[in-house]
Amino acid sequence: MELWYTEEPSENTRFSVRVNRQLCSVQTPFQRIDILESGEVGRFLTLDGQIMLTEKDEFIYHEMMVHVPMAVNPGIQNVLVIGGGDGGSVRELTRYGGVKHIDLVEIDKMVVDACREYLPQTACKLDDPRVTLHFEEGLRFVRTEENAYDLILVDSTDSFGPGEELFTKEFYGNCYKALTENGILVNQHENPYHEKYVHSMKSANQHLTDFFPVCRTYLAHAPTYPFEHLLFGFASKKYDPLDFDAAGWNRLGLRTKYYNTDIHTGSFALPNDIRELLAGNDR
Amino acid sequence: MELWYTEEPSENTRFSVRVNRQLCSVQTPFQRIDILESGEVGRFLTLDGQIMLTEKDEFIYHEMMVHVPMAVNPGIQNVLVIGGGDGGSVRELTRYGGVKHIDLVEIDKMVVDACREYLPQTACKLDDPRVTLHFEEGLRFVRTEENAYDLILVDSTDSFGPGEELFTKEFYGNCYKALTENGILVNQHENPYHEKYVHSMKSANQHLTDFFPVCRTYLAHAPTYPFEHLLFGFASKKYDPLDFDAAGWNRLGLRTKYYNTDIHTGSFALPNDIRELLAGNDR
Repeated sequence: MELWYTEEPSENTRFSVRVNRQLCSVQTPFQRIDILESGEVGRFLTLDGQIMLTEKDEFIYHEMMVHVPMAVNPGIQNVLVIGGGDGGSVRELTRYGGVKHIDLVEIDKMVVDACREYLPQTACKLDDPRVTLHFEEGLRFVRTEENAYDLILVDSTDSFGPGEELFTKEFYGNCYKALTENGILVNQHENPYHEKYVHSMKSANQHLTDFFPVCRTYLAHAPTYPFEHLLFGFASKKYDPLDFDAAGWNRLGLRTKYYNTDIHTGSFALPNDIRELLAGNDR
Repeated sequence: MELWYTEEPSENTRFSVRVNRQLCSVQTPFQRIDILESGEVGRFLTLDGQIMLTEKDEFIYHEMMVHVPMAVNPGIQNVLVIGGGDGGSVRELTRYGGVKHIDLVEIDKMVVDACREYLPQTACKLDDPRVTLHFEEGLRFVRTEENAYDLILVDSTDSFGPGEELFTKEFYGNCYKALTENGILVNQHENPYHEKYVHSMKSANQHLTDFFPVCRTYLAHAPTYPFEHLLFGFASKKYDPLDFDAAGWNRLGLRTKYYNTDIHTGSFALPNDIRELLAGNDR
């Protein structure tokens, strides 16, 4: 039997992966969740028919989301992850002995349940004693927090669907308040390649600059996201992401597959076309 | 009518682009050449059914191939381009007033003829008076040259098919001999994502290190090459690509869409997984 998963990044492009079997398919009040198994990219998670992660290269996204801020402030103890029900960001965070507590706020409990069952590669540290799971809206959760976190990771889906509120000004104002004076926020920054996302990227970027004195954007290479740049926003109350102790991070001896301290610096060098889209915002 | 171009990066993946019309399709003794027009990525060139370039993002590849070595040695005068019949690398080279002569050696004249007719965006400078076209084998051409070029660009197709000889040790030995004492060589370095190319990448890299005292690898982001990293090899007789006059290049006032002097430095920071594949070769 031929079984092919097909995604349409736009109405003019299609991208297909041969599938061995469908491991899970469930419609929740928030979205449709599927986990499929392939020879090419291992198991992969789709939400509403869009690939969120593959076992083959999820490490690129998760390492770049976590190790960049952790290298900038090795003193980070309390972390809030918004979204990220697959557990990949939590897995990377738990590698740091200095991290004391992680709150994971995922709107859709079924994402966590499905990943626990079928994606142990990412979900393996969700039972770490330092992790508390909260199944509720990110915006609602963060509203009540003040001076509580050293790091917030906005590990969200795209700006359409359940992740929509995570691209509003109100959300980023509440994040600012929830952070300590050393606070850093990193977000999934949308993708400037497609017209429909450029507006989301610019407004997410603008919201960060409305609140945070330091805002920079960084870029990773992810071969299995066709037609996408993988961009991250780095916002902080005082830390400059390029002024960090590379030797200190290397002394930790963490083995990573993508991140290293040269990539850390290099990832903040953006191509001219992306620079122009963000012109005036980064500082 | 629905008309779709489909490429299979591997037997387990497919990538399709909706096509408005086929502009050109010709079988030569060397390969099948097609130029198609799409709404999504503009016109695009395929050789033997593989996308070589699209109007939407060919600038990434061509800017990174040309401006990195030109920034390292602004005194470059004589250039040899092997392959590159689409003209994109020549276009970028002709932007430098200091470049006196460019020899373009393309095995398949039909590539040049087709691109002149249907891809003026890349072919537009092939008639520059400084450019001489040679329709012959790259290996054969370079065998007879000595101390003739400041820069050689190996702007080749993949290591299977007509580009095969450009991945041999003999070829790189002849390139070394054809270069002046200031000589730099940049090559398309294959793609470490697919198993079948990893061997080509390692051997091309090994051949460079057999001859050149300085060998480094750099990386660009190209969203329309699904499942690929865009890697380049930089080999030289004396110049270190990271020791360059960024301010001098910026004073030239060239407008680029991807390349800038921060990207120049950042592109040499490789992810750990690629570093390990090249371990021991870069120096």
